[in-house]
Amino acid sequence: MATSVKPPYLLFLADAEDRLAAKTAFGLHYWRSEQCVGQLRFPECRVSLDLPDLLLEDAVAQGARTLVVGLAPAGGQLPQRWVSTLAAALQSGLDLASGLHTRLSGIPQLAELARSLGRKIHDVRYPTGEFTAGSSRRRSGKRLLAVGTDCAVGKMFTVLALEREMRTRGLSADFRATGQTGILIAGAGVAVDAVISDFVSGAAETLSPDNDSHHWDLIEGQGSLFHPSYAGVSLGLLHGSQPDALVLCHEAVRVVNGDFADLKLPSLTECAELNLRMARMVNPGAQLVGVSLNTYGLSEEEARRTLAEASDLLEVPSVDPVRTGVKSIVDRLDQQVGRTAAIA
Amino acid sequence: MATSVKPPYLLFLADAEDRLAAKTAFGLHYWRSEQCVGQLRFPECRVSLDLPDLLLEDAVAQGARTLVVGLAPAGGQLPQRWVSTLAAALQSGLDLASGLHTRLSGIPQLAELARSLGRKIHDVRYPTGEFTAGSSRRRSGKRLLAVGTDCAVGKMFTVLALEREMRTRGLSADFRATGQTGILIAGAGVAVDAVISDFVSGAAETLSPDNDSHHWDLIEGQGSLFHPSYAGVSLGLLHGSQPDALVLCHEAVRVVNGDFADLKLPSLTECAELNLRMARMVNPGAQLVGVSLNTYGLSEEEARRTLAEASDLLEVPSVDPVRTGVKSIVDRLDQQVGRTAAIA
Repeated sequence: MATSVKPPYLLFLADAEDRLAAKTAFGLHYWRSEQCVGQLRFPECRVSLDLPDLLLEDAVAQGARTLVVGLAPAGGQLPQRWVSTLAAALQSGLDLASGLHTRLSGIPQLAELARSLGRKIHDVRYPTGEFTAGSSRRRSGKRLLAVGTDCAVGKMFTVLALEREMRTRGLSADFRATGQTGILIAGAGVAVDAVISDFVSGAAETLSPDNDSHHWDLIEGQGSLFHPSYAGVSLGLLHGSQPDALVLCHEAVRVVNGDFADLKLPSLTECAELNLRMARMVNPGAQLVGVSLNTYGLSEEEARRTLAEASDLLEVPSVDPVRTGVKSIVDRLDQQVGRTAAIA
Repeated sequence: MATSVKPPYLLFLADAEDRLAAKTAFGLHYWRSEQCVGQLRFPECRVSLDLPDLLLEDAVAQGARTLVVGLAPAGGQLPQRWVSTLAAALQSGLDLASGLHTRLSGIPQLAELARSLGRKIHDVRYPTGEFTAGSSRRRSGKRLLAVGTDCAVGKMFTVLALEREMRTRGLSADFRATGQTGILIAGAGVAVDAVISDFVSGAAETLSPDNDSHHWDLIEGQGSLFHPSYAGVSLGLLHGSQPDALVLCHEAVRVVNGDFADLKLPSLTECAELNLRMARMVNPGAQLVGVSLNTYGLSEEEARRTLAEASDLLEVPSVDPVRTGVKSIVDRLDQQVGRTAAIA
C-alpha cells in the first residue's frame, strides 16, 4: 500500500476559523480518538477538539509520532508561519502528514530537514506506490464498497460507521481509504483520484488484497457514476474493488448535482441499478445491502418517512449513520452476503 | 493541447523484424504519407515502407523536422545503438518523437543534447499539459467518439478513415488522438490513459475545444466500458468528449475479452445501449450513427452477412473500414446528426 502514516497523532489546527475549515482534524478525532494525543493551535484559533493543547515536546513525550495537518490554509498557499511550525515538528522528532494540494515535501526547507533528520513526510493526496493496470483476478475475502448519487454524500462516514459497528460485534473488518481524509484516518490507503487513469482499477486491487474468507474490506467510495467530472474514477474503483456488497449513499434533500446545478441527480433505483450492473461485470454476485441517507435538516418524522420509503423502494435496510446508526445494514450484510458466500 | 509534433517526419525503423513490430511507423505512413519524407533503417531491418531510405543529413535537407521512433524495441530497454542514432538525429537538426514506455527525455545523454541544441523530445505517451477536472460545460461544434466492445478492435483506424472520407467531401473534420500512435499520426493529442484519473474528463474537454458549429472533432476512443482494467478511462473520455455521435467498433470474430479469456464480450446491442446511456448524461442528444466491424479472416460472403446483421440489429449503417470504407457512416452522420443539430 502506498501510504502508511504512524500514529499516535498530534493534530495541527493552526488558525482554523471554524469546524468546516478543520474538518480533517475533526474527522480524524471522531473516528480515531484513541490515536490522537493532543492538538496544536495558534493563539487565534477558534475551534477546539476535545483534546489537550500540547507543545511539540510534550506531544513527543506522550508518544506522538506524527503531526497531522488537520485543515487547509485559506487561499491555498502555505503561510510561512505554518512552515516554521512544521519544521519545528520535524526537529522535535515528529513525521508530518498532510492531505493538502500543496506538497509539504515540495517545500525545500521541509524536504531537506526531513532528509537530514530521517523523518517522513506523507503527502497523502499523492500516491507513492507503483501501480499497474487491473488484473481483474478475483481475490479471497469479502468486500463492500460505498457508492453514491453524487460527491460528498457521506460515503466515507458510512463506511467508517460500518467498520465501527462490525468491529464492535467482533467481526473482522477494515476500512480501506481512497481519499486524503480517509487515508489520514486509516493511516494508509491510496488517493485513487490522483492515480494515473490506466492504473485506477489496479490501485484499487492493491488496496483490498487477498484476505481471510470471513474478512471484510470496507472500501471508501469516490465520486459517482453520475458525476460527469469523476465518473471514470468511480468506475475504475468499482471494477478494481470487485465488491460483494454495495451501500448506496445519498443526501436526502439533494436533488441536483452539487457541482452542476442544472444536472439532476439520479433516482436511488437508477443509481443502484447502474452500480450493480457495472459491479457484476467483475463480480456476478454483487448485491445491494443497504442505503445510507444523510437526513440532516429533516425533522425526525420526515427522516423516518424518507428512510422507510428508501427501504421499500430498494428492499434493503436504510439508515442515517448519524441518526439511526448502521446496525441494520450490518445485520443484512451478515444474513444476505454472509450466507450467499458460504453457499457459493 | 499537451503535445505538438512537427512534421515532416523521418520514420525510424531500426532493426524491425516484421510489420507488427513497426506498426506505429506503418500507421503513420498509411494515414499521413504526405508528411513522411523517408525511413531510417539499420542494415538488418526486415521491413520497408514505401519510402526512400535517407541518411539523417539528407532527410534534413529534404525538410524533415522530426525523427519518429516507429517501433518498440524487443525486450523494452532501449539499445545503446538506438541511443547513438537518436543522438545523431538531434545533432543533425531533428526533434525526436516516441510513443515508447521508456522516456527518451529520461535518457541523460539525449536530454542534455536536446537542451544544449534547443531541440524538442516528445514522449507522447506522457502528457505534459496541466489538466483539471472536467467542467461538463457544453462546447460548440460537433463531436464523434469511437467506442468499442474491447481494446484493439479498430477504434483509431475507424476514426481516421472517417476523417479521410469527410475531408474528401470537403467537410470540416479533425482526428483527435488519445493514444500514442494516434498522437504521432495527428502530431498532437493527449494520451488519456496516462492522465491523473481525476482529470481524464477535463483532458478530454481540452482535446476537443469550442469550434465552428459545422466542425466535427473525430475522437479516438480508448478501451471499453466493458473492459474491467480500463473502463474508467473509457468513461472519463466519454464524459469529457460529450459526443453527439457514437460509432461502435468491434472485431467480428472476437467473442471474449482479448485480455481475459473467461470474460465474454457484450453484445453489440448491450454495448451501444450502455455507451449511449452514459453519453446522454452529458449530451442528451447523443446518437449511434454506425457500427464498424473488423471482419478480417471472414470470407466476402460471411463479412457481408455479418455487416448486414449488425445494421439490422442496430438500425445504423455498418462498415468494415478496410473492406467497405466508411462512406455510409458519413452519409448517415450528415443526414441524422447534421439535421438534428441544425434543427436544435
